[in-house]
Amino acid sequence: MIAPTPEPPYTAVIFTSLRTEGDDGYAEAAERMEALAAEQPGYLGIEAARDGLGITVSYWVDDNAAAAWKQVAEHLVAQRRGRDAWYADYQVRVATVTRSYGPDGPR
Amino acid sequence: MIAPTPEPPYTAVIFTSLRTEGDDGYAEAAERMEALAAEQPGYLGIEAARDGLGITVSYWVDDNAAAAWKQVAEHLVAQRRGRDAWYADYQVRVATVTRSYGPDGPR
Repeated sequence: MIAPTPEPPYTAVIFTSLRTEGDDGYAEAAERMEALAAEQPGYLGIEAARDGLGITVSYWVDDNAAAAWKQVAEHLVAQRRGRDAWYADYQVRVATVTRSYGPDGPR
Repeated sequence: MIAPTPEPPYTAVIFTSLRTEGDDGYAEAAERMEALAAEQPGYLGIEAARDGLGITVSYWVDDNAAAAWKQVAEHLVAQRRGRDAWYADYQVRVATVTRSYGPDGPR
């Protein structure tokens, strides 16, 4: 689903990753992290796709909300597991969305 | 492949889409647009994944480079085809990347 984000500005966290072989608890944890993110203050939505390369973009009211989610205890545990087991490589990019438009124009 | 972007700041264009049924020339055009984007001034890289939802993130040295790519004639034709045929829905978000890090720290 395309996230129903408000008018800019807001914060996007672009998480790009390459998986290691095997599941190793990944699928369950990924689902749990999406649900947990949705409970955090300042959460606006999430979009995710994977076909080899995985891209997850989470949207937040501002950088502080995104930074707070990074520090949530259960998320910190998952981040360590990601570095140690799930991801062969990854990159996180924190960005400020300044313009947005769809088929019906700006939104 | 994870795009080899430089240290921030730079511009990310997050293109999220839902396809219509059937190919209708889409796959060939998508490949061509990725190749054409890579020839543009200020291009830094591109990342794409689709499983139902499609997410393509292109990276540019600045907003002007991203805006110039939007206006390239062959790209304008593809954008119209996208609105008319390929996409059931889409959203484009232009964002300024302010921080970036991977497994080995900031980059």
